[in-house]
Amino acid sequence: MAKKIKLGIIGGGGDSLIGVLHRIASFINDNYEIVGAVFNPVWEENINFAKQIGIKTDRIYVDFDTLIEEELKLPKEDRIQVCSVLTPNFLHFPMAKKLLENGFHVICEKPMTTTFSEAKILQSVLEENNAVFAVTHTYTGYPMVRQMREMIKDGALGKIQKVDAQYYQGWLNPVIHEKEKRASTWRLNPEKAGISCCFGDIGVHAFNMIEFTTGMQIDAILADLNYLYEDNKMDIDGTALIRFNTNAKGVIRSSQVATGEENNLTIAIYGDKGGFRWEQENPNFLYVLSDDKPVQVYKPGHAYNSELSLDGTKLPPGHPEGIFDAMANIYLGVARAVRGEAYNSGEFPTVMDGVRGMSFIEKAVESHQKGNVWLKIED
Amino acid sequence: MAKKIKLGIIGGGGDSLIGVLHRIASFINDNYEIVGAVFNPVWEENINFAKQIGIKTDRIYVDFDTLIEEELKLPKEDRIQVCSVLTPNFLHFPMAKKLLENGFHVICEKPMTTTFSEAKILQSVLEENNAVFAVTHTYTGYPMVRQMREMIKDGALGKIQKVDAQYYQGWLNPVIHEKEKRASTWRLNPEKAGISCCFGDIGVHAFNMIEFTTGMQIDAILADLNYLYEDNKMDIDGTALIRFNTNAKGVIRSSQVATGEENNLTIAIYGDKGGFRWEQENPNFLYVLSDDKPVQVYKPGHAYNSELSLDGTKLPPGHPEGIFDAMANIYLGVARAVRGEAYNSGEFPTVMDGVRGMSFIEKAVESHQKGNVWLKIED
Amino acid sequence: MAKKIKLGIIGGGGDSLIGVLHRIASFINDNYEIVGAVFNPVWEENINFAKQIGIKTDRIYVDFDTLIEEELKLPKEDRIQVCSVLTPNFLHFPMAKKLLENGFHVICEKPMTTTFSEAKILQSVLEENNAVFAVTHTYTGYPMVRQMREMIKDGALGKIQKVDAQYYQGWLNPVIHEKEKRASTWRLNPEKAGISCCFGDIGVHAFNMIEFTTGMQIDAILADLNYLYEDNKMDIDGTALIRFNTNAKGVIRSSQVATGEENNLTIAIYGDKGGFRWEQENPNFLYVLSDDKPVQVYKPGHAYNSELSLDGTKLPPGHPEGIFDAMANIYLGVARAVRGEAYNSGEFPTVMDGVRGMSFIEKAVESHQKGNVWLKIED
Amino acid sequence: MAKKIKLGIIGGGGDSLIGVLHRIASFINDNYEIVGAVFNPVWEENINFAKQIGIKTDRIYVDFDTLIEEELKLPKEDRIQVCSVLTPNFLHFPMAKKLLENGFHVICEKPMTTTFSEAKILQSVLEENNAVFAVTHTYTGYPMVRQMREMIKDGALGKIQKVDAQYYQGWLNPVIHEKEKRASTWRLNPEKAGISCCFGDIGVHAFNMIEFTTGMQIDAILADLNYLYEDNKMDIDGTALIRFNTNAKGVIRSSQVATGEENNLTIAIYGDKGGFRWEQENPNFLYVLSDDKPVQVYKPGHAYNSELSLDGTKLPPGHPEGIFDAMANIYLGVARAVRGEAYNSGEFPTVMDGVRGMSFIEKAVESHQKGNVWLKIED
Repeated sequence: MAKKIKLGIIGGGGDSLIGVLHRIASFINDNYEIVGAVFNPVWEENINFAKQIGIKTDRIYVDFDTLIEEELKLPKEDRIQVCSVLTPNFLHFPMAKKLLENGFHVICEKPMTTTFSEAKILQSVLEENNAVFAVTHTYTGYPMVRQMREMIKDGALGKIQKVDAQYYQGWLNPVIHEKEKRASTWRLNPEKAGISCCFGDIGVHAFNMIEFTTGMQIDAILADLNYLYEDNKMDIDGTALIRFNTNAKGVIRSSQVATGEENNLTIAIYGDKGGFRWEQENPNFLYVLSDDKPVQVYKPGHAYNSELSLDGTKLPPGHPEGIFDAMANIYLGVARAVRGEAYNSGEFPTVMDGVRGMSFIEKAVESHQKGNVWLKIED
Repeated sequence: MAKKIKLGIIGGGGDSLIGVLHRIASFINDNYEIVGAVFNPVWEENINFAKQIGIKTDRIYVDFDTLIEEELKLPKEDRIQVCSVLTPNFLHFPMAKKLLENGFHVICEKPMTTTFSEAKILQSVLEENNAVFAVTHTYTGYPMVRQMREMIKDGALGKIQKVDAQYYQGWLNPVIHEKEKRASTWRLNPEKAGISCCFGDIGVHAFNMIEFTTGMQIDAILADLNYLYEDNKMDIDGTALIRFNTNAKGVIRSSQVATGEENNLTIAIYGDKGGFRWEQENPNFLYVLSDDKPVQVYKPGHAYNSELSLDGTKLPPGHPEGIFDAMANIYLGVARAVRGEAYNSGEFPTVMDGVRGMSFIEKAVESHQKGNVWLKIED
Repeated sequence: MAKKIKLGIIGGGGDSLIGVLHRIASFINDNYEIVGAVFNPVWEENINFAKQIGIKTDRIYVDFDTLIEEELKLPKEDRIQVCSVLTPNFLHFPMAKKLLENGFHVICEKPMTTTFSEAKILQSVLEENNAVFAVTHTYTGYPMVRQMREMIKDGALGKIQKVDAQYYQGWLNPVIHEKEKRASTWRLNPEKAGISCCFGDIGVHAFNMIEFTTGMQIDAILADLNYLYEDNKMDIDGTALIRFNTNAKGVIRSSQVATGEENNLTIAIYGDKGGFRWEQENPNFLYVLSDDKPVQVYKPGHAYNSELSLDGTKLPPGHPEGIFDAMANIYLGVARAVRGEAYNSGEFPTVMDGVRGMSFIEKAVESHQKGNVWLKIED
Repeated sequence: MAKKIKLGIIGGGGDSLIGVLHRIASFINDNYEIVGAVFNPVWEENINFAKQIGIKTDRIYVDFDTLIEEELKLPKEDRIQVCSVLTPNFLHFPMAKKLLENGFHVICEKPMTTTFSEAKILQSVLEENNAVFAVTHTYTGYPMVRQMREMIKDGALGKIQKVDAQYYQGWLNPVIHEKEKRASTWRLNPEKAGISCCFGDIGVHAFNMIEFTTGMQIDAILADLNYLYEDNKMDIDGTALIRFNTNAKGVIRSSQVATGEENNLTIAIYGDKGGFRWEQENPNFLYVLSDDKPVQVYKPGHAYNSELSLDGTKLPPGHPEGIFDAMANIYLGVARAVRGEAYNSGEFPTVMDGVRGMSFIEKAVESHQKGNVWLKIED
């Protein structure tokens, strides 16, 4: 193995869960070392956090611009190679853009940008700068999600005819019914969270999961969103009918007021030769359905799985690996790309996933606003 | 207990599964005896079937009209009281209508009629004739489905905000992809099966399940159906967005090409105080969700259940009762109604369920044909 | 189909659940009609119960001996052919014996007798009288239990090397910890319930399930029972190590103080070619394990199942059939035997199952009392 | 947070899965940095592995004795504080002993020693040297396992009356039936793997899980082991009856020829107030049973959980954490102990767990060899 890849981190300090997830993921496969960071815009918290997690403080920078400026002064072999952007949503775009323009590879949290037009700009910046760019649609890192993709590619389901993805959470329920609470939650503030809450935050994962596993692109959607209260400006629930360029159809269902649901992302895919069912809360079980044979339960780590799936499993069957491992698999793919090694296109989501995701969110809101009409997804 | 109720049966002979289901259901709670029938339009098969299942042959009639004519000649105390209509779909309406007009109570298989306008006629005939009428939405007879209804009525979920019902089967998959097969299947022939295949046959169960459990009426739908092939005239898959008169929204998903699915009817209901999840293939498990407490798993037969649920359980907890018991519960409710005993309105589906179901089917097809627009459900 | 078989019933009146179970089972496949009975030793309750469930009262007898006496006076073609014995345990033996001696076929509730020596007597009476005799180990009637038996017979698991059966209930927990309650419960009274409570009532089902599915005979056991309190005379929990004549070993675990368990009968069987897992509370799911292939989930009604399994399924896949159907399958097998038709030996448990079951119970108690030593099962 | 703890690692190089597990666990909570190691006895592999995983090579030592010698020369503040022993089983004892004698804290893989007498020596060495010592019974690190322990401590189950633990794997099945394979597998060679294969390797986990969760000590066992073939010298399957000092009883079931099982560790615990069921392959679901209330499903991360459980969860509910996280929780507990911070005794298994585990293994084999008699567990 080559030397460890030099990783920079923007954001993710303090109690940030996303920070924990990325740091652990970067460690798991022995590919990265964190060499520089801006964990927090407040200097004292920034430097203290670095000490707390045991990062050397010489390359903890006062802010993002300084990080870029100072790193560029370093000889190329010492410089940060990949930078993870874990800041609030509206900063993803300008930071990712500037990083790419200055020759850094980028791992960007989701949503990649706050608008589709920003996403298109990022896409063209990336094309001009020969860099690796990953959007962390973490769930694509699960071994059994990868197994679905590979089996579909190999024709196990035949021609896809029906797709149904769900992402249900209930966390907004204790917030939404009290006027003051819903007025003061940043996720429900369009100025802070963009055009959409539910579809922007989680519906887009369901969208991406469909495109990732089926290898098909969603052509058009018709969406109906729910805001529950008139003074609430952001969708907190909704359903989108979907169409492909084939005769397949489907549905994306998403909610943050599905009371009592934790993080219930599921997908069901049916083709003329077979079907799949998978649930994120039991990620190690993939149900393979057929017309005339018993249901088969695929589990990670077995030799019957595809290479892409096995590559994402570290331990023998029966040892549950979880969400950290899913994210780690994405970091592993990025490492291979950064090093110029061969990798499977399923190893990490790219800028195109980000672009299409932003289109999905914008078109969903627009379809709803226009009275639930069909609109094309663009990229 | 009063004397057994005299039951007549139209259809359901030979290999008919629906015939088995109704006969067993009529027996289970010791309320009915089959005294007369037309099991089959072919006389020899009719009479032989009666012998085969051990029914006395003196009141096996040559056809439906003869049954009515001859039964009316009998003294009232000997005459058929309730008649189960298990014939092909297009005969449900004329037979049910004539039975009601002649003073019989009716248990009618689903779909109640083939059009909404027939359904409205039946409704008015029923209003003129003081009779008991049940449509066999069998799944409403499951103890845990009844438990949902009662708990929602008691406010356990608070105000409903999201409803999601699914009915996925895969049985058409081996048929639909071959031109000759799809041309020769009666379910796909509009002349034989009416306006809709998937929504008419199973989507309407999901519709009824929502109205039964929530006690709310669906106000309007927007549907997108899938026919997969241009020469196929009947929907075999589809999704309907639904709206209530409240701010709640939801979705009905239905498919007969969800390859490998058997009879996967599920419902999820979310209110501001809690949520429910239930699956027909594991009917004895009701999952009760909340914001801040562990998920609770309700099972039949326990004292913590509602009266309506317990009334539908014959054995102690842990002894799985199945679909025969669900149908039997509906027969039990009808028996109480026929005898003029008190009963819970949840014990059997009425003509109004049939009327609304027909409206759902017709509006779904119309919504699709008009380019996926919202249409009101009528009753 | 031949004429219905004439069925007599002893016991099972009033609130008896076992009475419900047998009556429904006898009806389900259209093979039996109840023509005579002694439902209750109190005449008024006896006759009223017959009226309540709609049985003609001319052959409701004052007691068991009268039933035999009067039925023998009837011409053979009118006489009860099969008699179901649903009385308290200590009456099973004398009644079954007398029925057999007088030329009746018998369906006997479990335990067949209260001692092994009675069981042996019954066995020899049966050998002298050419009759059909079934002990209602109901769980062997489940389609997926039958499927295990047939697949093992066909070699699907190879040579069996490990068997683990569990029967856990918790219903005694609210009784056992209060001195007065445990003193007054008939199940805990050796004079009323025989030598064993937990092993006699449910452990023996686990024993039978092992012998039924594997087709192997348990050779010897070593048992450790638990009575929890010194003044409690009956086992309420226990474990038996088991050995076969091969190198296979296993364990039978049984409890009535497994707090919160309902009726949790499970079996796991492992051979050198594969394994099975099955649970009574989800009886329609059979998990088939292998070294190197995905777990397969077998479900009833599919063409991939064995004849014996399919024979026990009335409806298409996905329509849950339950415990009534399991018992009905046993009644169906008895009907075939009574009519002299061909049947699979797995269709109903015989006197030999009863004999071995009684030996299991007695040897379990003896093994425990002797300080947990190995004892041979006899038959 | 204080500075990172200096961690040394012995073994775990190359493809070692246990090495991966420990390294990731040491990283996850930001408490450790690996400063020294002997990854492999072959120098070239040792140093290359260090490079491969990005560890500085200046304190990669040629062998274990050199590591101790050289580290002791370093000033205390630079020296390895904790050393993880991941070597073959027979080396655990001498290495752990020498480390303790030289003032290092130790995290020791399981089995702690190869005999009970070694375990007792290690215990006394530890008492003489004031050090932290953990045996990695990894499964005790799962949040829901910790939740069981805390709830039992708080009386949620009342007085324990029945315990049933299972650890079934099938990995030996493809090995055991071929004479050459079983002769050449080190796990089946008593000289390499000690006195027991199945009970030594996995049965002891079930034993520890019982003592960890219930807080009770197993008093005596009676074991029956299975070797399947006469030329096989090591148990590959077995069952142990267990007794406590109370009137509770139970069973430990363990197998490596449960064909098709992956890593199926389960525990069921029943007290007079309630019961628990938990499975390692679905570690985020804890089923809480009661006499009269619905089953409750506890999941990690919710505020209703105990402190000890919540301390082991990093992400919100619904984000599956897996086996790496379980091990990481143990490392976290050790870190607290090393730093002299307060910690819950459930945070890591101690030498006493190791001592009792060794006694369990030895007594199990002895019980079997003496003809399945009861023997006391010692510590």
